[in-house]
Amino acid sequence: MSSAANAVYSTEVALRWSDMDAYGHVNNVQYLRLLEDARISAFDAWFGAEGGESMLDSGVIVARQEIEYVRPAVYRREPLQIDMWVTSIGRASFGIGYEIRDPERVGDALYARAQTTLAAFDLATERPRRLPATERAALEAHLGGPVAFRRANR
Amino acid sequence: MSSAANAVYSTEVALRWSDMDAYGHVNNVQYLRLLEDARISAFDAWFGAEGGESMLDSGVIVARQEIEYVRPAVYRREPLQIDMWVTSIGRASFGIGYEIRDPERVGDALYARAQTTLAAFDLATERPRRLPATERAALEAHLGGPVAFRRANR
Amino acid sequence: MSSAANAVYSTEVALRWSDMDAYGHVNNVQYLRLLEDARISAFDAWFGAEGGESMLDSGVIVARQEIEYVRPAVYRREPLQIDMWVTSIGRASFGIGYEIRDPERVGDALYARAQTTLAAFDLATERPRRLPATERAALEAHLGGPVAFRRANR
Amino acid sequence: MSSAANAVYSTEVALRWSDMDAYGHVNNVQYLRLLEDARISAFDAWFGAEGGESMLDSGVIVARQEIEYVRPAVYRREPLQIDMWVTSIGRASFGIGYEIRDPERVGDALYARAQTTLAAFDLATERPRRLPATERAALEAHLGGPVAFRRANR
Repeated sequence: MSSAANAVYSTEVALRWSDMDAYGHVNNVQYLRLLEDARISAFDAWFGAEGGESMLDSGVIVARQEIEYVRPAVYRREPLQIDMWVTSIGRASFGIGYEIRDPERVGDALYARAQTTLAAFDLATERPRRLPATERAALEAHLGGPVAFRRANR
Repeated sequence: MSSAANAVYSTEVALRWSDMDAYGHVNNVQYLRLLEDARISAFDAWFGAEGGESMLDSGVIVARQEIEYVRPAVYRREPLQIDMWVTSIGRASFGIGYEIRDPERVGDALYARAQTTLAAFDLATERPRRLPATERAALEAHLGGPVAFRRANR
Repeated sequence: MSSAANAVYSTEVALRWSDMDAYGHVNNVQYLRLLEDARISAFDAWFGAEGGESMLDSGVIVARQEIEYVRPAVYRREPLQIDMWVTSIGRASFGIGYEIRDPERVGDALYARAQTTLAAFDLATERPRRLPATERAALEAHLGGPVAFRRANR
Repeated sequence: MSSAANAVYSTEVALRWSDMDAYGHVNNVQYLRLLEDARISAFDAWFGAEGGESMLDSGVIVARQEIEYVRPAVYRREPLQIDMWVTSIGRASFGIGYEIRDPERVGDALYARAQTTLAAFDLATERPRRLPATERAALEAHLGGPVAFRRANR
């Protein structure tokens, strides 16, 4: 893991049998579907779903995504683990790093590494917005290193 | 477009109403679902679906994906256009570049840019395989430049 | 077909490769996904998408669905044909019958029969609403018989 | 509930944020997606996933489905509860009844009622097969009444 251990937020996401495609593996697109629900879990934990507006209510849109597939996954009833941390914080955007792994394995546990860039967005005006100080502080508490992609980028 | 015009393969993919999420926009993950079907169309055209084994039958797996969202899309019955070309050819893998666009607009037509790295794979032995000369030749006919991502990569 | 031929509306819907599941067949749930897009096409044709509010804008919710699977389908690039007609018209709801078929086959062309009950709904007040005379007239023009389900219902 | 209480099997299924459509409700088709994963859980419990071949490995296909939507659902992180029981047992097919509910509510907890007819299937020969005595016995232990659909059937 390339981030400080204490910055990492771990959550579990359930697979669905239909995540598998005709090859009998979890389809490559569905990994990004899993990341979507992991973000909701992380944002609730980081920004507070109770007693305040969550990041998702404030508005955020996905600006960029990158994913590297490490090992094929097959459906199982036990959830996968997704480790998440903040990779960068800008004036109006921030990055999230992810590692999707099997929580029951010690070696060869990694299925994929990914990175998402999110832009803060004002849902009412449909325009970008600056990250307020409270959101920046919440993100800084989870700041870690870049995603350890193995391959050069193109 | 960063690739030689004659290398580019254009195909149309239909949206589904359900591609939209609760924000009323085509969901970020669904763009990659559209790329999947665009690849099938391109591989049929490039490698020949008729009178020979297609690339998908020979076996290919998605090793890496990257996407940059440019403009939000909403559902419409008219299909989107996906322009595709080959960005790189290796011994056992190759890259595909994409631009998802509105075929009826002249300006502001671009929805997203994306890149996929595919690894040739032997479905029987479940191991990587080298690209044979026929497949390399088919890819070379569509070789273009890198995807013109606007943002630096992390 | 159990409805008057002139009442039937035929539309084409594209499959996606991902509609197939790990068994290599179009997944049973995805048939209902295809019906959703077929309804949008039919409602545009029946209620007029241009120059007036469509049925979907006025608001309609799915109250009940029933489907009988006749023959398994596999992914193909050519679209499937969906024949649709109105099976019943009530004060605040109506029924749609469907046959999903292969337009290129003469025999054994049927994949599934289905029926959906839709309730007219006021999106602003989130309450049921009565079908206005214009909507009733549009539905009556497509009124046919019941869906020819083979099996008794439970 | 229309079945004997001791026949009912209850399982929990997680929603995904993407189960919601552009209306901001869980999409009608996704309810059937939830039933699919509930069946896997029930079949593991009823037929035994450990130490023997499961029903899904033996092969079963969906022949018919019916669903009645009772109350709209919105995404939440807490899972929904699905109660399931056997509604009928034939020579080569059987029926499953379902109630999808909110486990945290006492009144108004029901989201939908549904029924699926499944046909036993030999995956190797791709032909229907008879239910063996062991499968019949497992089903009989969960036999309950018909699904309490409110509306007449067409």
